[in-house]
Amino acid sequence: MTAPPLFPRVAVIGLGLIGSSLARVLRADPTLAGELVAADRSAAVCARVLELGLADRAETDPACAVAGADLVILAVPIGACADLAAAIGPHLKPGAILTDVGSVKQAVIRDVAPQVPDGVHFVPGHPIAGTEHSGPDAGFADLFRGRWCILTPPPGTDPAAVEKVVELWRRAGSMIEVMEPGHHDRVLAITSHLPHLIAYTIVGTATDLEEHLKSEVIRFSASGFRDFTRIAASDPVMWRDIFLNNREAVLEIIQRFTEDLTALQRAIRWGEAETLEHLFTRTRDIRRGIIDARQA
Amino acid sequence: MTAPPLFPRVAVIGLGLIGSSLARVLRADPTLAGELVAADRSAAVCARVLELGLADRAETDPACAVAGADLVILAVPIGACADLAAAIGPHLKPGAILTDVGSVKQAVIRDVAPQVPDGVHFVPGHPIAGTEHSGPDAGFADLFRGRWCILTPPPGTDPAAVEKVVELWRRAGSMIEVMEPGHHDRVLAITSHLPHLIAYTIVGTATDLEEHLKSEVIRFSASGFRDFTRIAASDPVMWRDIFLNNREAVLEIIQRFTEDLTALQRAIRWGEAETLEHLFTRTRDIRRGIIDARQA
Ligand SMILES: NC(=O)c1ccc[n+]([C@@H]2O[C@H](COP(=O)([O-])OP(=O)(O)OC[C@H]3O[C@@H](n4cnc5c(N)ncnc54)[C@H](OP(=O)(O)O)[C@@H]3O)[C@@H](O)[C@H]2O)c1
Ligand SMILES: NC(=O)c1ccc[n+]([C@@H]2O[C@H](COP(=O)([O-])OP(=O)(O)OC[C@H]3O[C@@H](n4cnc5c(N)ncnc54)[C@H](OP(=O)(O)O)[C@@H]3O)[C@@H](O)[C@H]2O)c1
Repeated sequence: MTAPPLFPRVAVIGLGLIGSSLARVLRADPTLAGELVAADRSAAVCARVLELGLADRAETDPACAVAGADLVILAVPIGACADLAAAIGPHLKPGAILTDVGSVKQAVIRDVAPQVPDGVHFVPGHPIAGTEHSGPDAGFADLFRGRWCILTPPPGTDPAAVEKVVELWRRAGSMIEVMEPGHHDRVLAITSHLPHLIAYTIVGTATDLEEHLKSEVIRFSASGFRDFTRIAASDPVMWRDIFLNNREAVLEIIQRFTEDLTALQRAIRWGEAETLEHLFTRTRDIRRGIIDARQA
Repeated sequence: MTAPPLFPRVAVIGLGLIGSSLARVLRADPTLAGELVAADRSAAVCARVLELGLADRAETDPACAVAGADLVILAVPIGACADLAAAIGPHLKPGAILTDVGSVKQAVIRDVAPQVPDGVHFVPGHPIAGTEHSGPDAGFADLFRGRWCILTPPPGTDPAAVEKVVELWRRAGSMIEVMEPGHHDRVLAITSHLPHLIAYTIVGTATDLEEHLKSEVIRFSASGFRDFTRIAASDPVMWRDIFLNNREAVLEIIQRFTEDLTALQRAIRWGEAETLEHLFTRTRDIRRGIIDARQA
């Protein structure tokens, strides 16, 4: 007789890049998940998910999908979490674990925690992995391999529930870090939200150029610009929600960035060769750190 | 009897990423180049170049290297071009072609053209290809394949000389565009100089963080930040020279960028969901253009 899987029934809500990648991880390991139920508001996505073999069942009604599930994974834009939590809350099985993958943690906890019934364990999470693509076809099982996953369980969360979510991400190939949600939001404002905002801005600046210049920008983009366009091709709704829900931390880091840009601008204006060379040299340390940490 | 190569003798000055990549292209095609002479101010680089088989001879004195050369390629930081041109000018053979690969064109023409003797053809160029690495070991022959090379010959340049430089880049696998140097400098300020400046700034902002935050920024860099660190790992001297020599165009585009960033900042502050979503959606067109142009 084989042991039952860690999660006999799993429901994944939102089968986009992250949700479908997790579904692929769960499908690949029968000791991890038993039945897998997908929920997506789009019937076309539900059909596609079954076609891809990513779930045993697919539902457009999330309340139906979570009934009887031991693990429920929310993988939708942050702004959709409050309504979804309200819709599924009453249908969560006692003892079930609810987790999410949202890129901001304080706001998700604020929106979701009040909807979680007693006896259900809420373990918020955020995998530090992604691409600029969306939808169920964009996912792949190796997305999380070698990457970090941050968990931000509120004080008092059942350690056994946290450990099970840790195990889920371990099986996905991730390293796990547990931290306080406010700290998560400040760190990610720097490593992720500011870079995306800057990339959106610079590509936006180019979008406003006269038509003939724009076509040349496209043609000669290999000199730096194209890397920004890849970042700025990420899902607009997901990013709208991130900026609306991590406002304070993002505004603070924009402020620092702007000050630093002004200093560089002044150095260029006044032809301060040494200042420029010094600033361009010190940034190399961080790159080396990233290469050493194998996150390059 | 086989026909002589297009350039019976070539001198490459500066065997860094670009110079050594071009040397590799020239070495691979005996119908393109005959004898190849390398010049680098560093004796260690000269020795390494011979070890790698990138040249027949290597000289630390550029004046010796250019004597008798049919094609001379300047592949050093822009700020070094004036002195080098003065040093080699008197030794250039009548009928020789002098070209360069500098990332700014008006400044190089300003610095180099006065040193070019009558009867020598100066054809300024700029390959739109590169990596963040430097030195003779970083080069590779395929660097220019499928990428654009921009030539900016001053009015009146001998068309036969331009055509020979075009042929050099064609053999390197590049597409060629001829344009006015001021226009080149404006386009590159957008596609290359601003992206690098922004990347240096954002990595600089992170460098100033408190130590414990910095180590987390490194750990969780896979969420956007690390792409900026790669760009900001480029050679500090090369970039110092670019900003000092394309000041007007760079300052103008920083100004536009800053205005756009301020608008986004305000939209975040006031929670303007529709503005954000709209801005994040319109940037996708440019990405699509780049993919269609096969420069992604
Ligand atoms: N992409 C990344 O790089 C990344 C990395 C780490 C974490 N995350 C987080 O992961 C979550 C999902 O991102 P993703 O990249 O997987 O996005 P995605 O590919 O665009 O998928 C989003 C999913 O959410 C569904 N959805 C959108 N709005 C909804 C609404 N109002 N109500 C119910 N369902 C809705 C979508 O349904 P349809 O099928 O109808 O569109 C889709 O299934 C986000 O919270 C994001 O912050 C993303
Ligand atoms: N990297 C790119 O992405 C890229 C792309 C297109 C065009 N470019 C242009 O290509 C040129 C070379 O860049 P690279 O990437 O090949 O740089 P690199 O790898 O750093 O090589 C620079 C070369 O120039 C030499 N050099 C530096 N300062 C000098 C001086 N004052 N006098 C004489 N020689 C000097 C260096 O000599 P040592 O051996 O002594 O260091 C080295 O051989 C630059 O003008 C740059 O604007 C670069």
